[in-house]
Amino acid sequence: MRDVAVIGIGMTKWGELWEKSLRTIFVETALLAIDDAGVDRLDSMVVGCMSSGLFIGQEHLTSLLSDYLGKNPVPAARVESACSSGGLALRQGFIEVASGMSDIVLVGGVEKMTDVTGCEATYALGTAADQEYEGYHGLTFPALYAMMAVAHMHKYGTTREQLAMVAVKNHENGSKNPLAQFPFKISVEAVLQSVLVADPLHILDCSPITDGAAAVILCPADMAKKMKKPVVRITGSGHATDTIALSSRKDMAWLESTHLAGQKALAMAGQKIGDIDLFEVHDCFTIAEIMITEALGLVEQGRGGKAVEEGLTALKGKFPVNPSGGLKAKGHPVGATGVAQAVEVIKQLRGEAGERQVKGAKRGLTQNMGGTGGSSLVHVFEAD
Amino acid sequence: MRDVAVIGIGMTKWGELWEKSLRTIFVETALLAIDDAGVDRLDSMVVGCMSSGLFIGQEHLTSLLSDYLGKNPVPAARVESACSSGGLALRQGFIEVASGMSDIVLVGGVEKMTDVTGCEATYALGTAADQEYEGYHGLTFPALYAMMAVAHMHKYGTTREQLAMVAVKNHENGSKNPLAQFPFKISVEAVLQSVLVADPLHILDCSPITDGAAAVILCPADMAKKMKKPVVRITGSGHATDTIALSSRKDMAWLESTHLAGQKALAMAGQKIGDIDLFEVHDCFTIAEIMITEALGLVEQGRGGKAVEEGLTALKGKFPVNPSGGLKAKGHPVGATGVAQAVEVIKQLRGEAGERQVKGAKRGLTQNMGGTGGSSLVHVFEAD
Repeated sequence: MRDVAVIGIGMTKWGELWEKSLRTIFVETALLAIDDAGVDRLDSMVVGCMSSGLFIGQEHLTSLLSDYLGKNPVPAARVESACSSGGLALRQGFIEVASGMSDIVLVGGVEKMTDVTGCEATYALGTAADQEYEGYHGLTFPALYAMMAVAHMHKYGTTREQLAMVAVKNHENGSKNPLAQFPFKISVEAVLQSVLVADPLHILDCSPITDGAAAVILCPADMAKKMKKPVVRITGSGHATDTIALSSRKDMAWLESTHLAGQKALAMAGQKIGDIDLFEVHDCFTIAEIMITEALGLVEQGRGGKAVEEGLTALKGKFPVNPSGGLKAKGHPVGATGVAQAVEVIKQLRGEAGERQVKGAKRGLTQNMGGTGGSSLVHVFEAD
Repeated sequence: MRDVAVIGIGMTKWGELWEKSLRTIFVETALLAIDDAGVDRLDSMVVGCMSSGLFIGQEHLTSLLSDYLGKNPVPAARVESACSSGGLALRQGFIEVASGMSDIVLVGGVEKMTDVTGCEATYALGTAADQEYEGYHGLTFPALYAMMAVAHMHKYGTTREQLAMVAVKNHENGSKNPLAQFPFKISVEAVLQSVLVADPLHILDCSPITDGAAAVILCPADMAKKMKKPVVRITGSGHATDTIALSSRKDMAWLESTHLAGQKALAMAGQKIGDIDLFEVHDCFTIAEIMITEALGLVEQGRGGKAVEEGLTALKGKFPVNPSGGLKAKGHPVGATGVAQAVEVIKQLRGEAGERQVKGAKRGLTQNMGGTGGSSLVHVFEAD
């Protein structure tokens, strides 16, 4: 397998982009990445999108997107793994370049979520759960994560305030990210006083509904060097699944797929978790980030709540988690999130992250998750 | 890149399977392929499905399917390219094995289309067209292919009877395929007297709505040899896109994406079209098969109608096209079709195709298409 580098990144401002359609959002973003890479051709495209079918009534997505990007007849593949569709796109693009099948591959992620009503969006997102055994019985994602939160609080003594501290930290970071949907700070009190969605989760524990896209350009590391681009390699890729239904898990307070994907990615990279300088992880709900820090091995099982309280995962902590603002503040256009995590890591490893720069960062890790952890994708990046 | 072989195939009877859910159909089929391959593990899964979101309200599909197959935590990716989702799954699985990332990969395709009404199915299938510029203005797929048929008839003199002969030929072949949805013969008169759907296409020019799945197991060719399995290699893979909207094409009577994907696949295989012994192609409508035989270079542009009339593409003709019965008689569960084409080719190259066996077949080709040709996937197979 060939070494793979990221040579271009693109992301536009996320939010409720009512004036733009999915194709417009994607093309604007992809052009930024192509321009950043300075390439004059693409050999292939891989795009992650969870549900353009339910959100905008459009399948056959990559025929559409390659067309509107002006890149026909380029081979173009769409991949879907619910909210980890972007991470899956990154993995498929990585494999394609590593294999020798293609040299220059655009990996994109996109979702247009605000063209439907809130109820329709909740239904569409709910299709990431087991429809026959969860969805049709009334379970929504806030409800599922609320059960995970209760399990974690019961088992480890995680507090309601610790959950809020995840949101506060990520908004603190997000306030330094001009592309974030909600680039402002919030307080623990604000979280606790916000509307209750599914006990114990309040609305400020939840990532928002977002329109947005992200894109990166991959190529063989040798080619990147010749192009005299700053070389950031993808050194590890891990992918694992778990039962789709939360009720089938041995432990509702543990993310086994993230644990396994993390181990695989680190083993491939030849690194230990302590070697990594920053982490972009899937904080779709505050409890998720706490459980992810445990599953990746940043802290011991059950210590995730304490870790955020002690500042371990703050921007200037030992393990900076979600310097971008995470899903909570940056936004969560579901299919785009996994690719946007890579965009942030590349910015950090190039030293281009401005006010939220993690000083001297050389290695970063992304963790992207589908459903309640029914699938997880972890990637490790390293600057030359 | 490593040489890749297919060592297992699985397919169950297709049709309106009201008594089975998508997960059941997929698992039954995947187990047949695993059993046929005789493998005791999977390293990865790739599954093509066009729109489980719109057809059964389920995304995050491969978390579900790996779960119900009992294969968690195996990495499992879903890919989508409308009706060419199965062909795309085959390509992604091929790349994954060729790269060295995984050794034993299950490639599946599945669609459950009969749990919705006919109108809902027409809408779901219509999402393979450009929704903003085609779908919302009332264009359905029979209407789009009807326009292609009219263009072809006008430009080349293709006759209404020649269109019917494609359906007659494929039902003749399908009558020899016990897994086909419609395993019976029809006549030209029956086609011409059947209900008119979109002039000039009658209902017997159209492939049906189908529930079904198909699966193959891939591994490195070296591993297949050691396992003493009959080795059929995938020697070529081609993928190309075209404008998603039919109105944007230079020529409505020509399938450029199929032409380019075919050239790429044959070049990779080091073969010419005349070297291939049989073809499984995407006859979603009768006119499609006629245009595909031209785009692949079996006959000159404009001669596809004449070719079927002269028996060139019959089971015992010079270029047997759709020995399985094709989409027309075998059925068209859209995400499964591209994988089922591979299943048929492997059966033929192993000499296991029974009454519809193409004698002495050594090389076969599959052509799978999305939308009106907005994307095409072509694969070449060769028996050792």
